[in-house]
Amino acid sequence: MIDLASIYHRSDDNYCYLQNGDTLHIRIRTKRANVNEIEIIYGDQYEMIDYHWRSHRMMMDKSGTDSLFDYWHCTISNKKRIRYGFIIRGNEQQITYTEKGFFPFIPEDAGYYFCLPYLHQKDVFTPPSWVSTTIWYQIFPERFRNGDSSLNPNDTAPWGQEEPGLWNFFGGDFRGIIDSLDYLSDLGITGIYLTPIFHAKSNHKYDTINYLEVDPQFGDTELLKTLVRECHNRGIRVMLDAVFNHCGYHFPPFQDVLKNEENSRYKDWFHIHKFPLKEDNTINYETFGFFEAMPKFNTANQEVKEYLLHVAKYWITECDIDGWRLDVANEIDHDFWRSFRTAVKELKPDLFILGEIWHDSLPWLRGDQFDSVMNYPLLTKALQFFAYDMISAQQFMEDMTTTIHAYPDTVNNVLFNIIGSHDTPRILHECSYRKERVKLLFTFLFTYPGTPCIYYGDEIGLGGSGDPGCRKCMPWNPGEHDEELKEFVKRLIQVRKQSSVLINNGCFFFLTNVDSCLAYYTKKEEEIILTVINKSDTEAQFLLPFPLRGKKISLLLTEEEYAAESDDLAVILGPYESSILRFNMNYEYIHVR
Amino acid sequence: MIDLASIYHRSDDNYCYLQNGDTLHIRIRTKRANVNEIEIIYGDQYEMIDYHWRSHRMMMDKSGTDSLFDYWHCTISNKKRIRYGFIIRGNEQQITYTEKGFFPFIPEDAGYYFCLPYLHQKDVFTPPSWVSTTIWYQIFPERFRNGDSSLNPNDTAPWGQEEPGLWNFFGGDFRGIIDSLDYLSDLGITGIYLTPIFHAKSNHKYDTINYLEVDPQFGDTELLKTLVRECHNRGIRVMLDAVFNHCGYHFPPFQDVLKNEENSRYKDWFHIHKFPLKEDNTINYETFGFFEAMPKFNTANQEVKEYLLHVAKYWITECDIDGWRLDVANEIDHDFWRSFRTAVKELKPDLFILGEIWHDSLPWLRGDQFDSVMNYPLLTKALQFFAYDMISAQQFMEDMTTTIHAYPDTVNNVLFNIIGSHDTPRILHECSYRKERVKLLFTFLFTYPGTPCIYYGDEIGLGGSGDPGCRKCMPWNPGEHDEELKEFVKRLIQVRKQSSVLINNGCFFFLTNVDSCLAYYTKKEEEIILTVINKSDTEAQFLLPFPLRGKKISLLLTEEEYAAESDDLAVILGPYESSILRFNMNYEYIHVR
Repeated sequence: MIDLASIYHRSDDNYCYLQNGDTLHIRIRTKRANVNEIEIIYGDQYEMIDYHWRSHRMMMDKSGTDSLFDYWHCTISNKKRIRYGFIIRGNEQQITYTEKGFFPFIPEDAGYYFCLPYLHQKDVFTPPSWVSTTIWYQIFPERFRNGDSSLNPNDTAPWGQEEPGLWNFFGGDFRGIIDSLDYLSDLGITGIYLTPIFHAKSNHKYDTINYLEVDPQFGDTELLKTLVRECHNRGIRVMLDAVFNHCGYHFPPFQDVLKNEENSRYKDWFHIHKFPLKEDNTINYETFGFFEAMPKFNTANQEVKEYLLHVAKYWITECDIDGWRLDVANEIDHDFWRSFRTAVKELKPDLFILGEIWHDSLPWLRGDQFDSVMNYPLLTKALQFFAYDMISAQQFMEDMTTTIHAYPDTVNNVLFNIIGSHDTPRILHECSYRKERVKLLFTFLFTYPGTPCIYYGDEIGLGGSGDPGCRKCMPWNPGEHDEELKEFVKRLIQVRKQSSVLINNGCFFFLTNVDSCLAYYTKKEEEIILTVINKSDTEAQFLLPFPLRGKKISLLLTEEEYAAESDDLAVILGPYESSILRFNMNYEYIHVR
Repeated sequence: MIDLASIYHRSDDNYCYLQNGDTLHIRIRTKRANVNEIEIIYGDQYEMIDYHWRSHRMMMDKSGTDSLFDYWHCTISNKKRIRYGFIIRGNEQQITYTEKGFFPFIPEDAGYYFCLPYLHQKDVFTPPSWVSTTIWYQIFPERFRNGDSSLNPNDTAPWGQEEPGLWNFFGGDFRGIIDSLDYLSDLGITGIYLTPIFHAKSNHKYDTINYLEVDPQFGDTELLKTLVRECHNRGIRVMLDAVFNHCGYHFPPFQDVLKNEENSRYKDWFHIHKFPLKEDNTINYETFGFFEAMPKFNTANQEVKEYLLHVAKYWITECDIDGWRLDVANEIDHDFWRSFRTAVKELKPDLFILGEIWHDSLPWLRGDQFDSVMNYPLLTKALQFFAYDMISAQQFMEDMTTTIHAYPDTVNNVLFNIIGSHDTPRILHECSYRKERVKLLFTFLFTYPGTPCIYYGDEIGLGGSGDPGCRKCMPWNPGEHDEELKEFVKRLIQVRKQSSVLINNGCFFFLTNVDSCLAYYTKKEEEIILTVINKSDTEAQFLLPFPLRGKKISLLLTEEEYAAESDDLAVILGPYESSILRFNMNYEYIHVR
């Protein structure tokens, strides 16, 4: 029997979305292994023949399977208005699923069907076109490079000679970043994301004192302009961190409220429960987390809104930055973010808006607010599989399949994929300093849909536990870099840059003959890129489930080529080895899962 | 076994929404009769005891059952940030459902749980407060009343002496409406919705020629001001019809494009595929439906957007109208509607925005676009049950339960409920002229959640098939009104106005001992209003499933009162009779379904 209660679709969000103004992508999920095939029935409700709705039909493809569900998808083009439903077939049973429910017959009236009323280019989720090909690099400025010791804060420790702590300083600055741009270019980086750079008290600068002033330990506005210009000269975009959820304790308007209490003209800038602001051990205002030093902004207040939007626009106009990463983005109201998008895109249409959200982020990714979010769910799952051995390859593939179907592909293409950040332990640390696993994680990062970001130093084997351990100084002395790891990452970046098929084309997982092996491919027309990862300490003979006789197979990591002489091919992978294969094949021949 | 694949929740939309800035409403659905109870586990992730998340627990209530699912809900108050999950119990089985999936244990880490990051008043879906208590009346101006024959168009037919056709005129006008305000006040109406009134060619005026001019057959701007003022004096709000999806063929900018083709300065105001606009039997521009006389606006064009927003604001400023009903609302882009909301609410914060959408409308009802939509799904289901005998009472209750759970309650409270409009056959016609069924439909309309709207004339027994049959002239001669029906409707309006519990409190259906009976109640604190409807041609003895001994029961339709002397009470309903009962009872005593 077809299990009706587990069938899910909605004509919105990840189940029905515009790929562009003319093309619609539709998905549906059914209970795992419960349904044989699904045909979509669709058409413009005004297309009539003899007063009857002229519908079309198309078979849907299975796009993946997780522990509970099969997912199906299809693409409909060249229609302006679309009504659609699903003809679902199980063993000797057929039902039609429409907006009005399930029917044993196929309803004739278009009014029964799901409805995408009109396809508007204006409503398409449209991140800047440069984002999906970008190779990101995250820099924590205080710890990346000290290029101008004259700017060192008091008590600056010698570079890398102390463990990073909550309150010590090492003097990293803009000059240091500028001095390292050749290094980044050589690595292949095309976008840098700087954690906060505005005047603040701490070394992480998330406690802003002045949003309109570069922190003097980093340089000044002129030097920031130089940094951006030098980046742009090398084809590198620059994204800054917007800490708009809260300010620092020493932000003058907050100090004014502390001093003048209910008489302060800034009292509505914050969420104040009652005055006085502080009594004994209690604080009477909202904060970020439980940190009294980070008072939360009242972003619904018009003055606050205008002030913060002014800040957002100021740095675009002044320094021509390319993106804003939004700190604690989900604790600010949606209305604010809509205004934010309108304001910054008016000034620079291809500015990138990246939200920091660790949870399901769909409500911010409907085209009216963010262009992307930091992909923490990917990090969590990747660690469980690659670093902790908590889950099997099959479980990992199923979990990633769930994740892929939680967002539209248009979003997946630009998700900000990370395997570490200033808020998590170093990837090498997570892998218990087993470098071979870090390499597998990098392989995954650079072949998976979404845009990869390297946290500074991960590419040269920097270690360290969670904050503040993960904020060590980047070493620059000869011999301090793991050159073999760096060359491996560099090669992965080259592979990604040379493989346009890896961009914007999704990804399909499939089970292999080796339990510990992870395998997935991405395809565009006849070109296929297949990644195979052996996460085990024994050699794996991975059988290619494609008939490739007579085809040329490129091994992208090693730049070798093979001419396949048989249809039964195996890739032999040493312990913790991976391979990225490219070949051409007609899609109809692929029958996996 | 608990059926995992049919469990559904998302931390958004109808499954998780703000009732106000401090209160969150959470729902979940499970397979029908598959789960015994659900406990919600929740808390602020920053509330810690000894570095452990301090979570709270609460049992969820079952809020309804449809053919496939049980629905559960609960309300969480006084938290700013909420993480939550569901402890689901079946027969000898317990699982915890979080954002990261299902677990046989209860995860301790708050990071696993669903997340509502921060409750902002600004993000609450907030329709104007006056809407939920409004009794609406829809007027088709050309057919309501001819109050000034000097404005009659050429060839105006004598009032009601011809069948309504596609192109005939009867001369209804504003003066006629003003002359009828005492009639409407006496009926109990507190809001009128006028189909389009701007200069147009047709009798329905959906083919606008001039958006800034009242159609001369109705009067002029001054008379509209008088109409609105006279309404306001009587406590009646006025809503106009915004036809912004398309214009009329004779709209000057479109005429300009017809004349000047690609040289017209208005060519980007429309969706033109190619020039010339018309060739032989083909039209090369997008239209509403397949009507070449209704060219579709390009609302993504900045000039068009500004022009239409100017129109929207103009009539608010000029005439102080209270609402805009948006024609073909779902075929216009979301971006336009967001700008529309911002523009009109800035001018008049309590202006009502009502979209015409016949389908699932959630994407427009997230607080950033509309305040409500016309509830056509309710009409469809109500006709299937009350008029056509297509579905049983149980099926109807289950279908309405599905509908209720498809939107947040905050939306349900203000849905624009209709049992007919200018686009559907008259309700009397749908009921095959069996008035007793129309009365049951009215009883349902006035006791069900949402705001009821009467289509002019339905209250006095006007008949007529679909457009144009449903657009007959309202009779005004003595003896032409079905006075008994009118008095019945008037009584229902009084009951609704006197029963604040019917407003904003949802509704629960339950099965009765009589198959043909429909029963549902709404409750607020200890007050309960129970509606029982006997849709059959035989008498029904409806057993009250409440222990009411010693309680006073008010019969609201007849204004009778009973003192219950036993716990086993029955309401005896004649064929096609209904009853609305009010009594006080502690909610814990109710065990139905």
